[in-house]
Amino acid sequence: MKIKSAPRIREMIITPIAITDPPLLNAAGLHAPYALRTIVELITDDNISGVSEIPGNTSINEALEEARQLIIGRSPIQLSSIGRELESYFGKETASARGETPWDQRKLVHIFSAIEVACLDIIGKITGLPVVDLLGGKMRDRVPFAAYLFYKYEGAGGELGFNIDRNATGWNAARQAKAIDPEGIVHQAKAMGKTFGFRSIKLKGGVFEPDQETAAVFALREAFGEHIPLRIDPNALWTVETSIQYGRKMEGIIEYLEDPTRGQKNMSIVRQALKTPLATNMCTTSFDDIPGSVAVGAEDIILSDHHFWGGLRASMELSKICSTFGRHLSMHSNSHLGISLAAMVHLGAALPHLPYDLDTHYPWQSDEVIKTGRFNFEDGAIAVPNEPGLGVELDRQALARLHQNYLQCGLTKRDDETEMQKVVPGWKFEAVRW
Amino acid sequence: MKIKSAPRIREMIITPIAITDPPLLNAAGLHAPYALRTIVELITDDNISGVSEIPGNTSINEALEEARQLIIGRSPIQLSSIGRELESYFGKETASARGETPWDQRKLVHIFSAIEVACLDIIGKITGLPVVDLLGGKMRDRVPFAAYLFYKYEGAGGELGFNIDRNATGWNAARQAKAIDPEGIVHQAKAMGKTFGFRSIKLKGGVFEPDQETAAVFALREAFGEHIPLRIDPNALWTVETSIQYGRKMEGIIEYLEDPTRGQKNMSIVRQALKTPLATNMCTTSFDDIPGSVAVGAEDIILSDHHFWGGLRASMELSKICSTFGRHLSMHSNSHLGISLAAMVHLGAALPHLPYDLDTHYPWQSDEVIKTGRFNFEDGAIAVPNEPGLGVELDRQALARLHQNYLQCGLTKRDDETEMQKVVPGWKFEAVRW
Repeated sequence: MKIKSAPRIREMIITPIAITDPPLLNAAGLHAPYALRTIVELITDDNISGVSEIPGNTSINEALEEARQLIIGRSPIQLSSIGRELESYFGKETASARGETPWDQRKLVHIFSAIEVACLDIIGKITGLPVVDLLGGKMRDRVPFAAYLFYKYEGAGGELGFNIDRNATGWNAARQAKAIDPEGIVHQAKAMGKTFGFRSIKLKGGVFEPDQETAAVFALREAFGEHIPLRIDPNALWTVETSIQYGRKMEGIIEYLEDPTRGQKNMSIVRQALKTPLATNMCTTSFDDIPGSVAVGAEDIILSDHHFWGGLRASMELSKICSTFGRHLSMHSNSHLGISLAAMVHLGAALPHLPYDLDTHYPWQSDEVIKTGRFNFEDGAIAVPNEPGLGVELDRQALARLHQNYLQCGLTKRDDETEMQKVVPGWKFEAVRW
Repeated sequence: MKIKSAPRIREMIITPIAITDPPLLNAAGLHAPYALRTIVELITDDNISGVSEIPGNTSINEALEEARQLIIGRSPIQLSSIGRELESYFGKETASARGETPWDQRKLVHIFSAIEVACLDIIGKITGLPVVDLLGGKMRDRVPFAAYLFYKYEGAGGELGFNIDRNATGWNAARQAKAIDPEGIVHQAKAMGKTFGFRSIKLKGGVFEPDQETAAVFALREAFGEHIPLRIDPNALWTVETSIQYGRKMEGIIEYLEDPTRGQKNMSIVRQALKTPLATNMCTTSFDDIPGSVAVGAEDIILSDHHFWGGLRASMELSKICSTFGRHLSMHSNSHLGISLAAMVHLGAALPHLPYDLDTHYPWQSDEVIKTGRFNFEDGAIAVPNEPGLGVELDRQALARLHQNYLQCGLTKRDDETEMQKVVPGWKFEAVRW
């Protein structure tokens, strides 16, 4: 079979949405009642459409709008030259553009990711292959995720804000419950585990003093035993000394320590002092950071995120770099819906090595933007879709509703500090706190 | 469009062939009258066939035969799991298995390459996409190669051996002519350039004393001027001191110096002493070698060869590693026919960066095994095939004839030392000579 003439992209639809997000605490402050995402849809001249989802903010959306002129008329198959074109137009972004927050603030990588994933969805539909098969094929049928625990205030997020739905039960109730101490965290973990079957647990730290957060880790260990691997992520808020001190306390208790401290050099000092592997999505976050990482030995595990590394193919390349330099690859996440999850699952299925269960915020979200509704976890894992492309289809009604949320909520970017100040007046983000 | 059931490989045909090769001189001795290649054909249960070509020797062919049981019944789309399977079965090969000769003696990488390229050819035919589009798409329509000059004895190779076809004209005559001094090399370069239009020139060195070979480089410079980039490859036969001494002499004259000396550490010393970039296909030849290369700064350019790096996708990954660590990627070659060339062209077209014209022995061969006959060069470049897959089709008559050559010639592996001894009794390969 030969494609007589390559399909061309004739339309690019950029839809910012706002999804309900509970008041989760983290190093940068507090999640707003809505998390912003942007849904990108590319449509070819023969009406094949591909979708993607990226973290949303107005500056990224504006850049996506600018990218439209570069994308319309191009073949979705020509991924490398599309990438080249975008880089030429927008200019190379420095690694420091990432910013100091736990999330990544670069524009170009987000745009790359949005367009590449939508194109892969189209290529999959054209060729009849699921995206995983465009990445070298399926290394596993099910992709395992970890329970991602958060300190949080009481509240459901969205319209309810700090209120809760009193009729909720099970995880729906637990998701809304307050969790600001070891007891609350263990309760949250149990509810999440019961519903989703996760086999590993990550605690988002960087909220309370290390003593309190470490106590939560020990409480989880006591509640779940040694067969459920644990991790904690203080989002680089600890000094080198604190990282070593508390890292030593948790030695043998956690499977890895994520971003205890800031910067590759500091990470390497902590790494040398501990037996526990270190993971990062903050100090080695771009290909430009890799030489520095290799030079000092900054981490053992890179928590990739296809939204920040320029797409799924780049993440596969990162995986090869990791195995070449004795590192492992796992995955970072932000609040997201099923399109991002599908992309993560296809990538997770294609990765040659997957030694750790991946991060996902997905259980914290209640909205969905795809027709099949929310993905099901079985024993903490998601089955890889077998349909061509990503295997998800946009639910246009849901999309319209979530876009209305976006228009109404008034948020333009993620700003956890401002949200926190609404609760704790004068609260300030500090890059290093303890 | 959905593939209802994935195709399965039902047959694997392994055909060793011997192709006419003139008496080319190199660091390891002399080319035999025939170069060995192995043609691999995979056929799916729905009769889609994919082909590949690799350097031939009996131990690799035996390993391919062993691999058959792992390949039959598998989906050609599942490249990563096929790779995993082969690695599990054959065991990981150490980098030192490469050997000291200019060519690479590892088994597993050859087998990987043979099967991966044939599978990509099949995937291309299934999806209607040329292989370049399975590698991220076309970054250029034409892939430029360099004139690859050799010191040689008079002779046409093949049945003619050291004899020549007196009726030959143009490049056919020049290909048979003796070239053992600067004058002969310049004559060869002019004839090759006239026929193929190459815009860069590489001289295979490691044959004569550095003074003589450097004189040939200067003669080429005088004959072709500064706008035709030059390179020389002594195949690691020089000491560090000789490399620096002659490297300095050629500073500003050559665009890069290929493998002047042996080993990453020695290369790094030479590299620090010269402004001229260093290239290698001998000291950094596997992903396992990359950390050492990065640690010492062994070279500027890695001359990849998809036959030795485990296929086309691995070569794309290598390209990303190169750009991540400030290296360039170009391509190495051995005596080969059009199937290997097609694979090189698809890869060359897909590579994000291609700063140097690629190596190819192709002008030295006169046989062909594909239906369209020999590839045409225009201005030294080859147009990327647009057909699905590699865009080449096996010529079964030619294949049968070249297989007969194989059976009759009695060669079982490349052994340039033995061939040289037929001319110079007692000649011995030395890993370091000058």
